Formats: sequence, structure tokens, C-alpha cells
Amino acid sequence: MADKIFRVNMSDLTSSIEEVPADWQGLGGRGLTSTIVAKEVPPTCHPLGKHNKLVFAPGLLSGTPAASSGRLSAGCKSPLTGTIKESNAGGTAAQILARMGVKALIIEGQPNGDEFYGLRITKSAVTIEKESDLVGKGNFTVVEALMAKYGHGVGILTIGQAGERRMSAANISVRDPEGKLRSLGRGGLGALMGSKKIKYVAIDPEGDLPKIALADVDKFRAANKVFGKALVDHPVSGEALPTFGTAGLINVINGVGGLPTRNFRYGQFDAHDKISGETIKETIEARGGKSKHGCHPGCLIQCSQVYNDKDGNYLTSGFEYESIWAMGANCCIDDLDQLAQADHIMDDIGIDTIETAVTVAVAMEAGVIPFGDGEGMLSLLGEIRDGTPLGHIIGNGAAVTGRTFGITRVPVVKNQGIPAYDPRSIKGIGITYCTSTMGADHTSGYTIATNVLKVGGFVDPLKKEGQVELSRNLQIATAAIDSTGLCLFIAFPVLDIPEALTAVVDMINACFGIKLTADDVTALGKKILKTERAFNVAAGFTNQDDRLPEFFREETVPPHNAIWDFTDEEIDAFWDF
Amino acid sequence: MADKIFRVNMSDLTSSIEEVPADWQGLGGRGLTSTIVAKEVPPTCHPLGKHNKLVFAPGLLSGTPAASSGRLSAGCKSPLTGTIKESNAGGTAAQILARMGVKALIIEGQPNGDEFYGLRITKSAVTIEKESDLVGKGNFTVVEALMAKYGHGVGILTIGQAGERRMSAANISVRDPEGKLRSLGRGGLGALMGSKKIKYVAIDPEGDLPKIALADVDKFRAANKVFGKALVDHPVSGEALPTFGTAGLINVINGVGGLPTRNFRYGQFDAHDKISGETIKETIEARGGKSKHGCHPGCLIQCSQVYNDKDGNYLTSGFEYESIWAMGANCCIDDLDQLAQADHIMDDIGIDTIETAVTVAVAMEAGVIPFGDGEGMLSLLGEIRDGTPLGHIIGNGAAVTGRTFGITRVPVVKNQGIPAYDPRSIKGIGITYCTSTMGADHTSGYTIATNVLKVGGFVDPLKKEGQVELSRNLQIATAAIDSTGLCLFIAFPVLDIPEALTAVVDMINACFGIKLTADDVTALGKKILKTERAFNVAAGFTNQDDRLPEFFREETVPPHNAIWDFTDEEIDAFWDF
Repeated sequence: MADKIFRVNMSDLTSSIEEVPADWQGLGGRGLTSTIVAKEVPPTCHPLGKHNKLVFAPGLLSGTPAASSGRLSAGCKSPLTGTIKESNAGGTAAQILARMGVKALIIEGQPNGDEFYGLRITKSAVTIEKESDLVGKGNFTVVEALMAKYGHGVGILTIGQAGERRMSAANISVRDPEGKLRSLGRGGLGALMGSKKIKYVAIDPEGDLPKIALADVDKFRAANKVFGKALVDHPVSGEALPTFGTAGLINVINGVGGLPTRNFRYGQFDAHDKISGETIKETIEARGGKSKHGCHPGCLIQCSQVYNDKDGNYLTSGFEYESIWAMGANCCIDDLDQLAQADHIMDDIGIDTIETAVTVAVAMEAGVIPFGDGEGMLSLLGEIRDGTPLGHIIGNGAAVTGRTFGITRVPVVKNQGIPAYDPRSIKGIGITYCTSTMGADHTSGYTIATNVLKVGGFVDPLKKEGQVELSRNLQIATAAIDSTGLCLFIAFPVLDIPEALTAVVDMINACFGIKLTADDVTALGKKILKTERAFNVAAGFTNQDDRLPEFFREETVPPHNAIWDFTDEEIDAFWDF
Repeated sequence: MADKIFRVNMSDLTSSIEEVPADWQGLGGRGLTSTIVAKEVPPTCHPLGKHNKLVFAPGLLSGTPAASSGRLSAGCKSPLTGTIKESNAGGTAAQILARMGVKALIIEGQPNGDEFYGLRITKSAVTIEKESDLVGKGNFTVVEALMAKYGHGVGILTIGQAGERRMSAANISVRDPEGKLRSLGRGGLGALMGSKKIKYVAIDPEGDLPKIALADVDKFRAANKVFGKALVDHPVSGEALPTFGTAGLINVINGVGGLPTRNFRYGQFDAHDKISGETIKETIEARGGKSKHGCHPGCLIQCSQVYNDKDGNYLTSGFEYESIWAMGANCCIDDLDQLAQADHIMDDIGIDTIETAVTVAVAMEAGVIPFGDGEGMLSLLGEIRDGTPLGHIIGNGAAVTGRTFGITRVPVVKNQGIPAYDPRSIKGIGITYCTSTMGADHTSGYTIATNVLKVGGFVDPLKKEGQVELSRNLQIATAAIDSTGLCLFIAFPVLDIPEALTAVVDMINACFGIKLTADDVTALGKKILKTERAFNVAAGFTNQDDRLPEFFREETVPPHNAIWDFTDEEIDAFWDF
């Protein structure tokens, strides 16, 4: 049972291990990180200053045998958006932390001086040591060095050059089972870790860890079996995702005219077939990669993959739809190998692929490089790695880049780049972009499920009717799911198969010996959203921040000639719950 | 009588000359620009998009013989701050516009394409012509070319390379009587003019203009005489300013420990004597410059100067305290000739000296160049002129630069750089920085008058008592003064000599044949502030934006070890009127 709070103070380089306060005991993942941030971080503080905190928390089910439950949440006041932020990722860290008894790791304060530090977390202690060898190095080098030092069981959180430079698109990388990387991608958490002068956190299990004690093992097993069956039975989580990965969406979203192209000018990309999930699968198979791969142990969905270069050597993994869209259609680059190369570089320098590629499109808009220039994109990533002035601009995301070059066509909400679904032609996701407590974020209320994939019913993506309610219900459910450590993709079966939701609730109850109902889960989701919203309001955000940029309201997007036509009142009604 | 609204639509390159609506008739200068912006500009629009408008308006007394009444106001939604903005400057444009009958010039819309245009305004028409020769050129070249084309009587508004590139620290330059430049400096108005693709506005009087008809000439003359006497009698406007220019403040503010040094670390600069008004006066006199100079015809104060280089050639004019402070003490550069050279370059490329030099200090903080590096500063200005990535960063001001380099020590309020008075050791001005409707701006409520110069009484700068009320009263008075076309420095006699205020009111009444009282003037000031504040609230600003950066609250400033210690409630009480 994860029953300790590990707290690290980087101002005086001390640490403590604390009991979990009573009102945090039922929380995990996002529910816990957002609660801690709301309680301990002054909403108006500078995100890169000493008052911000970086909070890691495994989900409620992380470390248990529950299928696909290895997600790690990280929370803070976002250096990118200034809002509260939770980001979650796979990898091995959540499960190790949970089994070491770490309910949350809170990193606060800030050292003086320019030196970086490495943290080592064990069951009983935190060690803080100066680090110089790995400073300036990419994430892959860090992972190799730490695996050599602490063995192959070590969990790793690390930042690359982007995080060291406190660039607000920087992410935090999490070691995956093969020693590759997953990302706590959005919101600039890497910049925060860099501002605390932490190059890495090595989570050292020091050998085998005990299993998590379950209150009712039999009930847990039974529920997990039902849950696992639902995951493999559902056509999205059981078939589409394992077959084509998330990139299977390229052709699907292109088909409905919602694939933003050339910095959100068009809804379809002529060369979509060259970057599609189908083409990726063929390419992987021809080159001896893996078309199925789990981001953490116990994943039943296996939507990840290993993509090799022409010579059969590893090029990238976790080659996701959103990254491929952002670099591909939105920048008009159709060379899959260039995209994979860029994906690998971004993993290594530790920067969010969505934010960075949306930013590259904005730089293209500004004339820094032409649309379609794949080599130019790779060169911009080199500038980020090298910390040139242009690299600092791009590395700080789309809003800063648009501002710096005086561009108005900048697709952001609350300074975060809008991801891979045009909000004019898939209107539900536009409501999510506007109202998410974390800036434009598709994962916070993934209406694509219902607007496009017809999961959980169908709401016509081109009409306004029902979108606010859809986004609201999904954002509430997502806040709850993000608290469990379960992958968000479990939402597909949960939305369609009644037994799946029951099974999730049963697993939580069997784990902790409690008696939650589905209504309690909904109430938890609502409470998390309200907590996050209250933080943002105290930070100075208003309804005026819950808006799409001007051009979505004034330019139609082909092929449907759709426009963003929600009134302010309609958007603001999101919060009526 | 200025009785027409000139309106230019840059979307379709048309113009119209309109009657003045009834509710704008009693307004001028800032009162008029803010009223027009509040009525016609959507508060949430993108400042560089087609919905923003650029409004120029002479003051109520501009063009009359009233002493020191030649200020021109320009208003918009600021590209720098996102708030409403009014900036005013001397030069010849206000008086020419007023005598041509132009109550306001409203520029709206935005052309497609990359071509720039030049506007020519005459009494009866606006001509819009494509301009290519002057694009990419500095302001001095523009002024020379237009004086050659339209004669020496032409009024000129122009942008340099910074404005063309839509950099949000870009200013708009106004031709002065000698063909040199004054600046509509703060808030990034040059970026807005650049976004409308206007390189210059030539205001062509086509020969002699009629005098403005005064309703009661005798009464006007009598009041102007009293007013002029007060201006020359007062020790600040009549003696200190004409003798040493505004730079006379270097030693004064250094003396009270309020001269921000090394990016606001200290309140005194060791080398203050090397950049003081006294040293400037000696240097000017030794080199054959002018130590007295008016920025517009009819100025009785003559606080400007012409500063020559070692060889006696013109180097710069309008060499102001705030610019000298920002480049000097705050960047730790003590070579006066380097500062003058930088001042000249900034005039030529058309960028706000305060914002840019505050930004250079932030870049120094980030390690881009070392503190004290005058050549480095000149080199950064070259980057702005050339539009390099680093130039784009610096050219967008302190907030963008701080963000881009991940720096927390960034002295801004609402994204505008804090000017030349430390708010910890001169607390009244801190209240002005927080609550000004336009971001950190000393001119919007210049408490230095009372906190330091003991004009209008004395409020101890180191204590909190009385500062909110002082700033409020001065901001109200300033909003009214900024509507008259009178130089703000008339506030010194107005605050101390009862006849001076009466004379100003009498001049307005004698000009228009009306019967305002001093209370009406106060009511006007209040109404302007409330109008501006309402715009900002509708744009999404909250009380949380009325705050100084974190470090002012946490670091004391020597020599008084003063700290910023106002509570949120104390600051917010500013708006209780």
C-alpha cells in the first residue's frame, strides 16, 4: 500500500518522509496531484520560482495487477499555461513508486546557483547528489547511465536539454520497460524540473519489491478478469489500437475532415496515406520493428510500437497519432522517416512533440522555414538542443513563437498548442479545448470517441447540439480515470460495456476494502475539476480565457466549410454542474 | 475647431470623413482615444488582428496658443499588454491635425498581403498609396524623405523596422520641429501600425493653416498668461527641467535610493555621476549641443536637448531620464556616449527605449550578454534592426524575453517593463505600476512628484500610508491632463499653484465657450479611468493582474532595505471611487 509522502526541499537539499494526511488517503494520480497543488502552491506564483511544486503520484491502482494501470501523474502550476496542470504517462515509474509505498513525491523549493542535482529515491530515503556528467546530455544517455549505475529495474524520470534550459514546452521523460522513453508531455513540466535543478530522479527498488497488499484478492482478480475481457473485446482498445496504434486515426480523422493541415487551414491532408497508421504498420513490419508494444508492464492494449529505420535499426517508439499529425499534416511534411527521426530527437532533448510541432507550423507561418520543409524542422530541433535564440523561441511553444514573430494565426488556448482535431469540424473537442483546466488538451475530454468513433453513442461532430454536455461528461470521467493509474484508453470499453465500469469500481474497492459506487467516481471527477478550476480562478483566469483564437470564428475549414460558432454563454455553461 | 473624424479602413483601402458624434464632442486626447477604443474595439480581439484600431487624437487645447499644449494621443488595444492603451508624445502632428480640423484619425482593418502603404492626410482627404522605397528603412530616413516630398511643414507619424516586424516594444515616431523624433513610446503601438501595413502617415497642411477659432479670445489669452507664468515660476517646470532636462532626476532618485540598478537589485548606481543630468549638461555645452529644447512649438518648459558626439555632430535628442536610467543604471552601463548612441538607434529603428533597455537587462540576467556591456547592448539593437531571432526576442519586450530564457527576475506589470523608480523604496509609484490601466507606467500617476520632489505636499516614499490615495488622485488628474494636449509636466505647477489649475479650466472654457469647473475635470478623469478599466475587465484582466512580480515582495532593496509590502486588499482599494 502506497502510504507515504516523500517530500524533497531543493532550497536546502533536505527531504522527509511523511504520513499521508487523512484527506489525501482516498486519492491517487491526478486527484492527488491536483489536491496537493491546490493546497500547497500559491496560484499566482511564478511557475519557475521557488513557490511552485512538482508533484508525482502513481494512480490508485498503479502497482496492482489491474490491467493497463501503470500511469504516473505529475502535477504543478504549468510553466506553459500558468494554470494548474496534471500530465500522465506510462513507463515503469508509477508501479515501482507504488510498490515502494510512495503515494506522492513532492519536490519543492529551488537551490541557488547553476549546479544540477540527481535524486535517488529508495523505500526509506531520498538522496540528493550533485550531477555534472549528465548535464547537457539527452534523455537516452541519462537512461543508459542510470541503468548502468542502478540496474535494469530502476525507474527513471529525466529531463533533456530543453528542461535544463527551462523551456516551457519541455517535458519529463519516464523510462519504459525496454529502457526507451514515455513522456509527461504537455504543460512544460520539464521546465519546472529544470528550474528546481533536477536532472533526473532515479527510483531504485533495490531488488524485488513486495506486491501491493489487496484487501480482497479474490474479488480483485474476478473484477480484473472482467475488465481485461472488456479491454480486448472492444473494437477500439482490443482491435484498432493494437493493430495500427493511435496513428490509425490519421485516415479516420482525415476522412471526417478534422485533420488540421498547414497550420489549421484545411481539414484534410493530401498526403495522409503516406503518414497513416496503415503505412506505419507496413513499414514497421517490413523493417523488423514491433507493431505492438506496451508502454508499461501489464498493458493489454499495446498501442505503442517500435519503428526502425531503413537499415532495421531502432529509430523511435511511442510514435503517436498526435505527434505524427502535428509534424506531418500540420507542417505539410509527408516523409515518415523524417517524422520518426524528429520524434526521436524530441524524446532525446525532452520536449513535447505536440507543442513543438504546432510551434514549428507557427514558425512556418512566420516564414522562418517553408511549410513542408522536413530538414528545416530537424534543424529547428537542433537549435532547441543547442539553446540558440531561435531554439529558445521554438522551445517555449506556439504562443511565445507567435508573439515573438508577430503572428496572429496561432492555434492555442491558454498558451497551449491546440492538438490534432480541428474544433470547427469536430465541435465537441473544441469545447474541451476551451474549458479544460489545462489549456488546449484533447485528453482531458476526448470527444473524438463519441463525435467520430461512435463510442458511448454518437454526437454529430458538425453540430453544436450536445457537445457541451458530451465534453462535460467526458472531462468528469477523465478526471476520475486519471486518478486510478489506468490508461485513458480504458474509456472506450467503459463507455460501451457496462461491466467494464463496474469492474473498475470493484477493483478499487477490492484493493482498499472500501465501498465506492459509480456515483462516487463521478463525484470524484467533479470535485477534481472544481478544485482545478478554483486554482485557475485564483490565479487570475476568467471565462475570457476559455476561448478559441479569433481565426477559428472567422475562417471556415474545408471540406465541410465548418466554423466555430459557439457563443460565450454556450461555452461558459460547461461549468454549470 | 477640430470637428471631423477621419476614418481609414486598411482592409479595403478606403477612407471617410465623418461628423463627430455628439457624445465625443467634449473629448480630446486620451479621453477621446479611450472612448473610441472602448466603443469600437472588441476587448478580446487579437491586438495585431483586423479588429484592433489605431486612434490618433490631438488634445482639447492642441493647436491653440495654450502653452505646452502640443501633445498627440494614440490609443488602441496594446500589442504589448493586451490592455487598453493611450500613449502621448510631442512633435508637430497634434497641432497640425487640430488646425486641419481632425478631431481623431481612426485606422481600422488590415490589408492582405505583405505590401506596405503610406497615408497622406490633408484637410479634405486621405490618400493611401503603396510604399516600397521606405520599407526596411529607419525613421530618420522616412522623415527626410517625407520632408523632401511634402515640405518642412509636414507632420509625420512613422514606424521603423521594429514596427514593420510587429515587435511589441515598437513605438510610433512623431516628427519634432527640427525634423528629429519624439515617440509614442510605450505599449507597442508601432507593432499595431505595422500590422496595418502602414509605414507612415504624412499630415500635409498644404501651406498655412487657419488658427483655431476661440470662443472667447480675451479670456483665453488672460488664462494662458497666468498659466504660462505658473509654468515658469514653478521650481520644477521653470527651473529644474529646463536646466538639466528630465535626466536631472538621476542624482535625485539615486539619492533617495530608488534608482533601480542591475535589473532592480539595488536602489543606487555607483556611477550615477557619469550619467547624471549635470554631466549631460556639461557635456552638451562643451560639444556645442543644446541643453534646452522644446518637443513641440509653444513649449515653455524646454526639457529636451540636443546631444552631440565628441566631434560636435548630432547624436540624439529627447535624451530622457527614463531611457538613461534603463540603459545606464539598470544595465550597469556608465558610458554616456554609448547610451546616447543607443538612444539614437532606438529612435531610428522605432522601439521604446524604456521597454527595450529593461529587456536588455533581462537578457543580461539570462546571460545573453554581461551586465555593463555597452557594446553588447548596441549589438542587440542591431539584431532588432536586422530582425534576427534574438532581435525578435528582445524586440518583444521584457516579459517575452524573460519567458523565452526561463528567467523569473522579470520586472513587468501586465507584460510592460517597470520604469525608472523602484516601487519598494518609492511606494506610491508601485501602486501606480500595479493599478495603471496600461501596465507598469510611471506617467499614468507620477507619485514621484509628491513622494520625492515634494510637489503637491509630501507622502513619505518608504511608508505605505497615503500611497493608494496619492496614486489614485494623480491617475485621475493625469487622465484629464492627457485629454487636453497639455504636457504632463504642467502637473507640477497645477499641484502647487492654485491659479494654474483655474487657468487650464479657463482656457478650455474660453476655447469652446463652455463652463466646466475643476470638479468636471476630476469627473472626466474618473470617467476615463473607469472606461479603461471596464475594457480591461472585459478583456479578461482581474485584480490578480494588478500585482508586482514576486521578487519585489521577497527581496529587499538597498540602501533602505525596503520591500513591497502592500496586501492585495490595499492595492485593490485603489478602485474604490
